[in-house]
Amino acid sequence: MKKYDNLVMNAAGRLVPGELNGKQVIPYMGVGKFIPDGRKYAPPISSCANYPSDGNKIVGSLREALEKCGLSDGMTLSNHHHFRNGDLIAIQVFDIAKEKGIKDLVWFPSASFPVQEPMTKYLEDGTINRIEGSMNGALGRFCSEGKMKGIGVLRSHGGRYQAIQDGDVVIDIAIIAAPSADAFGNANGVNGPAACGPLGFALGDSQYAHKVIVVTDNLVPFPCIPWQIHGNNVDYVVLVDKVGLPEKIVSGTTEITKSPDRLMIAEMTAQFCDEASIIYDGFSFQAGAGGTALSIGIYFSEILRKRKIKARFLRGGSNKYPVQMLEEGLVDYILDGQTFDLEGVRSMREDPRHVDTSPFTSYNYHGKGNFASMVDVAILGATEVDVNFNANVVTHSDGYLLHGIGGWQNCLFSKCTILPIPLFRDRMPVIRDKVTTLCGPGELIDVIVTERGIAINPLRTDLIDKLKGSALPVKTIHQLQKEAEEICGGKPANPRLGEEIVAAVKWVDGTVIDVVRRVISE
Amino acid sequence: MKKYDNLVMNAAGRLVPGELNGKQVIPYMGVGKFIPDGRKYAPPISSCANYPSDGNKIVGSLREALEKCGLSDGMTLSNHHHFRNGDLIAIQVFDIAKEKGIKDLVWFPSASFPVQEPMTKYLEDGTINRIEGSMNGALGRFCSEGKMKGIGVLRSHGGRYQAIQDGDVVIDIAIIAAPSADAFGNANGVNGPAACGPLGFALGDSQYAHKVIVVTDNLVPFPCIPWQIHGNNVDYVVLVDKVGLPEKIVSGTTEITKSPDRLMIAEMTAQFCDEASIIYDGFSFQAGAGGTALSIGIYFSEILRKRKIKARFLRGGSNKYPVQMLEEGLVDYILDGQTFDLEGVRSMREDPRHVDTSPFTSYNYHGKGNFASMVDVAILGATEVDVNFNANVVTHSDGYLLHGIGGWQNCLFSKCTILPIPLFRDRMPVIRDKVTTLCGPGELIDVIVTERGIAINPLRTDLIDKLKGSALPVKTIHQLQKEAEEICGGKPANPRLGEEIVAAVKWVDGTVIDVVRRVISE
Repeated sequence: MKKYDNLVMNAAGRLVPGELNGKQVIPYMGVGKFIPDGRKYAPPISSCANYPSDGNKIVGSLREALEKCGLSDGMTLSNHHHFRNGDLIAIQVFDIAKEKGIKDLVWFPSASFPVQEPMTKYLEDGTINRIEGSMNGALGRFCSEGKMKGIGVLRSHGGRYQAIQDGDVVIDIAIIAAPSADAFGNANGVNGPAACGPLGFALGDSQYAHKVIVVTDNLVPFPCIPWQIHGNNVDYVVLVDKVGLPEKIVSGTTEITKSPDRLMIAEMTAQFCDEASIIYDGFSFQAGAGGTALSIGIYFSEILRKRKIKARFLRGGSNKYPVQMLEEGLVDYILDGQTFDLEGVRSMREDPRHVDTSPFTSYNYHGKGNFASMVDVAILGATEVDVNFNANVVTHSDGYLLHGIGGWQNCLFSKCTILPIPLFRDRMPVIRDKVTTLCGPGELIDVIVTERGIAINPLRTDLIDKLKGSALPVKTIHQLQKEAEEICGGKPANPRLGEEIVAAVKWVDGTVIDVVRRVISE
Repeated sequence: MKKYDNLVMNAAGRLVPGELNGKQVIPYMGVGKFIPDGRKYAPPISSCANYPSDGNKIVGSLREALEKCGLSDGMTLSNHHHFRNGDLIAIQVFDIAKEKGIKDLVWFPSASFPVQEPMTKYLEDGTINRIEGSMNGALGRFCSEGKMKGIGVLRSHGGRYQAIQDGDVVIDIAIIAAPSADAFGNANGVNGPAACGPLGFALGDSQYAHKVIVVTDNLVPFPCIPWQIHGNNVDYVVLVDKVGLPEKIVSGTTEITKSPDRLMIAEMTAQFCDEASIIYDGFSFQAGAGGTALSIGIYFSEILRKRKIKARFLRGGSNKYPVQMLEEGLVDYILDGQTFDLEGVRSMREDPRHVDTSPFTSYNYHGKGNFASMVDVAILGATEVDVNFNANVVTHSDGYLLHGIGGWQNCLFSKCTILPIPLFRDRMPVIRDKVTTLCGPGELIDVIVTERGIAINPLRTDLIDKLKGSALPVKTIHQLQKEAEEICGGKPANPRLGEEIVAAVKWVDGTVIDVVRRVISE
């Protein structure tokens, strides 16, 4: 954390620093306003002369691989999060760093999970300077309380690829845990005991990191097909007993919601889409893997079935429900960034219409387009929304940083972004005058669906027109706010925050949209 | 062409310039001796803000696309050659350039074909300064006679990727003809009326070119799957009536040889591999699509079938014969760089074991390894071989540049490289004291198989030992040379060459291994 003397006000009216962890940064300038004029990051050129001609890059241990990669103070180390809470490798990397007395590392995961709580001890003892990536649960709490030496940097999945591609973050060593790999380093996530689906979150790491280590427990003879990760980018391969805990990688428990309120929100969301003419032959949608989102998918399926039409593609995270849609012929393709259950993994392995994607294809804002903006409707969550439709996904109303951004910011570019959210949580209204942390600008958020009504962003006059005369409870966001405040007995309390900045939130283009401040916890 | 005042002798004993077309170049230093210390090429960073959010990048015509890309004097324009002699697009690009009065372009195709002979008029009138790429037939003759303004640069497929990756060649505009594409620019070669298989030769172009145009006659709704080319790298999409002539893309006529001499060479090659223990359960091989090579594949199949073993992978160019092996279970995977008939295309479309590859995965010497060096045996051709096993694939013995390098140099890195060649052509011995043009250093060429005997490179004492006591006619290369000279009535004549350099041959690492001189034609 750091106390800054001078902050500047960005285009969203948030005070942000011009420097983070010793590196200059650009304050948020508005959606689509910052146009980069630089060059992509240029990694060192390799030569086959320095790699074994028989393609065998196996070394004896992760420690040996890290040593061969020149692990040293101040380096940036990356991991992907496809193993979710079943990851076994990230923590081993830092155990080794600690044993070797390495200091001031930057951990650059594509996301962190509760299983990585032990990282707090390395943040405390100086092995790790900071985490640049999502900090869920305990790690977020640690950061929020001002205990992290450096400043956390939160990026969306697309923003992470952008940062790697543009050289905002230079990865010294990428450690890629892989459910299957060959000795050359070709790897995939669809085969092996720890199968997790795609490995797309590690793609940018493999392309741009100076050194790349693939760790697997399922070594196959060359070629490991599909080669989601190309061995041509890999330096060393490490064979371990167990690369991940399958039962924690794929939960198998993701089910549609049974809560009557949530079911109502789901049904209203689907009906809204229908009345707004969003559901047509060839449409596309993105829904998360949460209970409400899954229920919306079920309603969509019913509509498609009834009308004998189909969706062109469904953007996942996938699990058995999207797979059922694919197999029933209700959708042509699943474009999948991560699979959440074994049915998803099986489908991706067997069905060429179930396509593995990466943040490069789906989300990178510094590409020549990405497909997030082509999705007809994206259904997302939020911890808070404000009366200008700005939304927060990383902090709770008490100021604690407890979630990552994931692909959320990137999905806001869909043709219609809907946030189906409860009107209040723990008797605290979710709609505020101003969100605690700004993650998504209101101009990109089109509709809020709550159990007590639907608010359409006034900018979307087209949607307002389409819903005229609807039986759906369309209200203004101020009406919804007022109802919530009446039920909860007033406006939500403001969090007690110090002046110190503990983390910064990047926008999809690498500019700083907001900061997270220290929570005064006593 | 150019007459140089000072040339330097490279590690192969060839006189080469230190500069080509105004750019400094490095003379060949020996196999694996030049270790690059630079950075990969860094293309400009793009922003989604500059691309249509609905993903529709279609413009009205190729001309419009080229204009939007800023087509202007001196630019480098690239094409791929997956359509082979059925290409319709490359010539249109330069027709447009000519109409617009553009001058001094560099044409950077992955290969050229006879259909592109009309390019000579643009080389004559100054629209095109030079071709950097293979020059087959008429274009090669044009270049050989000193009529090309600039100096041609010949690269292997892997060397072309290396040159793009390392920034030796900066592509201003890549024009990628695609049998299928969507409006976003995702493209593949496996579907559509002009299906040609993979599009791997255009991969590097799509990744590193400043501007990328996809041209197709088969527009499909997003997403075009498989997306061999990612729309995220594409600027414009052009829809045309016909992107290629299917009957000339896939010949469908590639058949095993019927010539008794060639059949004997094929059989001897297969038997040699067998006696040298190269054929084992899990081995791999690369054979071309020529009649002799195909016949060798047939012999390999018989051996595999008889022993009830299988190959792990087969490196193609594929056609119906490798596909039969795959479907019969004689090989686990085809790693395919280009398909030569409709059976190859069908197999790649339908069978996930028939994998499309690119020069990045297969050949790029400036990667962290590539799989060419993992192939157990590569069977290649040559126009000439010399007594030190050096070989030539680009010029004929009369000095004319008539062929490209293809993947030939890259394949030399296989564990065993065999050249099955006739002892003489047109009553001219193929084995010379010194090859006219050096394309592959002798240390990488292990075995020469001719109709009158087999010569093993003295460096391969292991192979010589294995063949001791063999019934095969193992001889020295000098013996073979002598026999050929006796039959033909002496050594082959030397070509009549001028001093001017018309083209340079790059080694896989970007250094200059040899030059091609003007042929005195009168």
